[in-house]
Amino acid sequence: MSSRIAVIGAGIMGADHARIIAEDLPGATLQVVCDASAERARAVAEAHGAHDVATDPDAAIRRRDVDAVLIASPDQTHAALTLACIETGKPVLCEKPLSPDSRECLAVIDAETARGRQLVQVGFMRRFDPSYREMRAALTGNTLGAALMMHNFHRNVDAPAGFTGAMAITNSAPHEFDIARFVLGTDYRTVTAFQPAVTATSERVAPVFMVLETTGGQPVSIEINNTATYGYDVRGELVCATGTVSFNAPVHTRVNAELQSVERYPADWRPRFAEAYRLQNRAFVKFVETGILADAAASAWDGLAATLAAEAGVRALTGGSRVAVTMPERPPLYRR
Amino acid sequence: MSSRIAVIGAGIMGADHARIIAEDLPGATLQVVCDASAERARAVAEAHGAHDVATDPDAAIRRRDVDAVLIASPDQTHAALTLACIETGKPVLCEKPLSPDSRECLAVIDAETARGRQLVQVGFMRRFDPSYREMRAALTGNTLGAALMMHNFHRNVDAPAGFTGAMAITNSAPHEFDIARFVLGTDYRTVTAFQPAVTATSERVAPVFMVLETTGGQPVSIEINNTATYGYDVRGELVCATGTVSFNAPVHTRVNAELQSVERYPADWRPRFAEAYRLQNRAFVKFVETGILADAAASAWDGLAATLAAEAGVRALTGGSRVAVTMPERPPLYRR
Amino acid sequence: MSSRIAVIGAGIMGADHARIIAEDLPGATLQVVCDASAERARAVAEAHGAHDVATDPDAAIRRRDVDAVLIASPDQTHAALTLACIETGKPVLCEKPLSPDSRECLAVIDAETARGRQLVQVGFMRRFDPSYREMRAALTGNTLGAALMMHNFHRNVDAPAGFTGAMAITNSAPHEFDIARFVLGTDYRTVTAFQPAVTATSERVAPVFMVLETTGGQPVSIEINNTATYGYDVRGELVCATGTVSFNAPVHTRVNAELQSVERYPADWRPRFAEAYRLQNRAFVKFVETGILADAAASAWDGLAATLAAEAGVRALTGGSRVAVTMPERPPLYRR
Amino acid sequence: MSSRIAVIGAGIMGADHARIIAEDLPGATLQVVCDASAERARAVAEAHGAHDVATDPDAAIRRRDVDAVLIASPDQTHAALTLACIETGKPVLCEKPLSPDSRECLAVIDAETARGRQLVQVGFMRRFDPSYREMRAALTGNTLGAALMMHNFHRNVDAPAGFTGAMAITNSAPHEFDIARFVLGTDYRTVTAFQPAVTATSERVAPVFMVLETTGGQPVSIEINNTATYGYDVRGELVCATGTVSFNAPVHTRVNAELQSVERYPADWRPRFAEAYRLQNRAFVKFVETGILADAAASAWDGLAATLAAEAGVRALTGGSRVAVTMPERPPLYRR
Repeated sequence: MSSRIAVIGAGIMGADHARIIAEDLPGATLQVVCDASAERARAVAEAHGAHDVATDPDAAIRRRDVDAVLIASPDQTHAALTLACIETGKPVLCEKPLSPDSRECLAVIDAETARGRQLVQVGFMRRFDPSYREMRAALTGNTLGAALMMHNFHRNVDAPAGFTGAMAITNSAPHEFDIARFVLGTDYRTVTAFQPAVTATSERVAPVFMVLETTGGQPVSIEINNTATYGYDVRGELVCATGTVSFNAPVHTRVNAELQSVERYPADWRPRFAEAYRLQNRAFVKFVETGILADAAASAWDGLAATLAAEAGVRALTGGSRVAVTMPERPPLYRR
Repeated sequence: MSSRIAVIGAGIMGADHARIIAEDLPGATLQVVCDASAERARAVAEAHGAHDVATDPDAAIRRRDVDAVLIASPDQTHAALTLACIETGKPVLCEKPLSPDSRECLAVIDAETARGRQLVQVGFMRRFDPSYREMRAALTGNTLGAALMMHNFHRNVDAPAGFTGAMAITNSAPHEFDIARFVLGTDYRTVTAFQPAVTATSERVAPVFMVLETTGGQPVSIEINNTATYGYDVRGELVCATGTVSFNAPVHTRVNAELQSVERYPADWRPRFAEAYRLQNRAFVKFVETGILADAAASAWDGLAATLAAEAGVRALTGGSRVAVTMPERPPLYRR
Repeated sequence: MSSRIAVIGAGIMGADHARIIAEDLPGATLQVVCDASAERARAVAEAHGAHDVATDPDAAIRRRDVDAVLIASPDQTHAALTLACIETGKPVLCEKPLSPDSRECLAVIDAETARGRQLVQVGFMRRFDPSYREMRAALTGNTLGAALMMHNFHRNVDAPAGFTGAMAITNSAPHEFDIARFVLGTDYRTVTAFQPAVTATSERVAPVFMVLETTGGQPVSIEINNTATYGYDVRGELVCATGTVSFNAPVHTRVNAELQSVERYPADWRPRFAEAYRLQNRAFVKFVETGILADAAASAWDGLAATLAAEAGVRALTGGSRVAVTMPERPPLYRR
Repeated sequence: MSSRIAVIGAGIMGADHARIIAEDLPGATLQVVCDASAERARAVAEAHGAHDVATDPDAAIRRRDVDAVLIASPDQTHAALTLACIETGKPVLCEKPLSPDSRECLAVIDAETARGRQLVQVGFMRRFDPSYREMRAALTGNTLGAALMMHNFHRNVDAPAGFTGAMAITNSAPHEFDIARFVLGTDYRTVTAFQPAVTATSERVAPVFMVLETTGGQPVSIEINNTATYGYDVRGELVCATGTVSFNAPVHTRVNAELQSVERYPADWRPRFAEAYRLQNRAFVKFVETGILADAAASAWDGLAATLAAEAGVRALTGGSRVAVTMPERPPLYRR
């Protein structure tokens, strides 16, 4: 009775998802690994004991021995593959973004709405991260009064050549857009964007600093710093009426040597969010079994919200003023 | 091809192990939950979807549909049940201590040696904890020179009425005896024990403070504080020639309120060592599959070493002077 | 040969300055304590062994037994009293702001320029705080590359009834305006302001969140949270090209109790900046002795810069868009 | 009416004391700097504006223009010079130890007792350190119940060639002996000593690890690690019935760079205890003015207690067993 899952895309994220399914999830079977590169598909399949490999994602989705799908292919393919899953009635965990284009997100929402039930979970795994859950619990438990503001910092070691501020907003910021919206339980109304003028290091993208305002009137600041160099570091602070909640960097040990007390940063996101991915994917297996999306899980609607914020953010960065973020009315399927 | 595991003992630890097997370990099946109380066995079995329940541990161990055994019954039953597993040739993960009596530990070692291969893993799960692994890696990587000392602090919220200093040494300290010995890669030669004279709170056991000396001449200090009240808190510091490694308390968030910045302690060991238990039990499943005990895993020999240290510790607490810890010669089966 | 100082204003700040002069500064004598309330003047004078008391500040400034003046009277009196000091040729340490009105600041600058030498030090004591000094040293030492951004958080326990967002900007924010400008070695070009819409707690002022842009193109975020309730907490982070520098909360001890690990916040600014005030006032004594303003010390020009930023900030808060901050050309007297 | 102080000894400690007197202590005058090396005396005198220099300490003590004495000369001269101060009736702040030899300490106590009033303050400055004061306040405030244990760690970057374990006990440990005794408000009964057997680095002294037992039955652990190499680091934890108090390393900033989050250690004790020295010496000036030794200040009796503990510690290190520490009865002069 194990759910047989097809992983579409065998890059870094796909390989990670395949490993999680194979090693951490009783109740799930790594059925197919699919990638345009047969060689890459085979390597991941062998590493994690998948039953089969494939190169055609649509065919893989339609296989009879596949119960559910995990999409980790390039961003621009997400919406079309998700639509294929909906068409076959198979639950799908789609890596973020649901689509970089809000019209495609709306198409997914329409298809899901037409089908009459939720099949789509979007891979905003931070919602399952213990830090954000504790932060959110402070709000739902009302121990610190109303939420007034939230500050978010996202820092990467480095970005590929040619990475731009706009890409920082569409590629990295969606995690921040989603999680702040999730923690605050709100939507966005405006976004303003700033960017340091750094001519000296012109081959590296400058950080982007945004301030969004929620429909509840809360400023949400977001720093996206893709070339921070010093490490992968995600921080946040929720400012409430009578106190704040912030994250500790999750490090196990401290080394004293050479006049320094040192805690290490990871070079990428995997150690930081390993537990979040594990819990998210476990929730997906449950979703496959029960048809009920976990409370914490991101839906297609949440995928749309993040993409709309990103699109407004790009306009704010270009135009230099406060840009409106407009959400359509929430369809009944996504009301909770 | 999933390994079918019988969990013997359905108390707190047994229930936790049943949960880990059921939720976190592909490749393992929770086959039987066995407890003297049929009711307790049933409750745990139902909670985690076990195939069957039982009340007779020896019969459970001998069942044909059981491939391996996890012993989480009361301490004084550990050795006899472990011997039963060895007799049937089934791999066993025995919660610590292997036995509170070193003669029983030796009997297990003799039986295993007679059988000619290792079947016993002892539940010193800290060896799988990321903090201790990073600490040990500093030693094996030789980044800080030779290990000179190690300081260990074990603090519980509370102990049952009637708990004594000797019980602190035989019950709680074995984790510390084992992990310091594991991190340092050594054995113990002496132990000295101290205990505060606290008459005011006579209904509570006083902490015990021990200093052991390893065969490598390294002082190892261990505080066992079973009525620390403030939280479950395990700390350690490895002092090397050119630096030290210590643990951070693993907390996700910090709350600012009422003139305080607060990090929370858990009330018991489970949040602190959840990952360690998961990784230890995963290693056990691998041990069942391959017959090869993981490098990090504790063997029956390690179980003996901890019990010998505890027995010497009790004598030191009573006698007030430096007491020798004597290990027999290591049989070939346990050489690595 | 001790410098005889008149302290004008015997409120909390004036009393603190009188104490510092009396207890911490060899080379300075607390000559006169002057306050509109003779009683208050006398209380402070007696507490710290002042030679005399007074109620007329202008007369106090003109006294022959007064070598220098420390102004800690209400904000709106600062500029006039500072002008009186310049007129008599006596060095003056004026508490911030130099004036809440930039035209008054310009009048002071004109008077000082007319006199041909610097007599005014403005009480931006954070420039002497070890945290900010270490942060600035990272920049001047160029260990982390160019400065890209700076984040600043100012949190108070509470504000008086009737305190507004505009007052947060003119009263509390000048410290932040000055110190970010000092650390970055730059001026401001624009300011944008945000404020949470909190109707639930309408009797308390909402925090203000500003983003300034420097003439070097660096975004500088500033949170002014005067009713943070949880404690007096000032934080900052300088984001450079290859790393960041941030502050530790300066706390001496940590208490473990009741499932919590607790560090305490002070209820006001005095413990946090005690060392900064001491070092600032020592620098002022040196300024009195030598006539040379310390490199770190804030001049009348710096006082003007902070007030201009505050005036623009108030307009930004009201108007809702990016507001320009315009500095006049720096007169030769203030070039370094 | 400023107290004129002679500083005896112009080494590192003497120079520091001269600086504190000159720069931080209104009410004190740096009258004479005395050193066997006239050159060294002159250098320190000039750096801090002393009125005179001298090379004969006994003559300096007897000068009519000297009101009080600060002894920072080599350890073996402390007792004799302190006796000279008592003879002339001049208050003296003697750097620790009062004497390395308990018989000399007793001689000072006898002389002071004969004189009928206290003239001696011993330089155990940690009693004025904010960390230790907060720790002690937890005990006197009884917020955490009775004190059960105390753990102390003293780590230096390096020790001179030829430094031995016995020297670690007589030279560095007295600070720990005194402060634990002060915080706990008790005396010592026994001491046991341990030392790592490190043959590999034979040219460097191994750390010493001691466990003392107080007359209240409290174990006090002390690590003296003079070649810790990683930095000057003093830590402590007080373990009480319902909680613990420990120190934070007093660092102002944290730097993120190169996959590390780094806090720096100082290379010696001066930054760590700058405030303690300042407050201690201020208390001494008050002692000179009033004749009343501050509550927190260490007396000759406290000097004896530390030396007796050190002498027992050296015997414990040599003999390998629990050694008694025996205090004579406390003379009335030292009862509080």
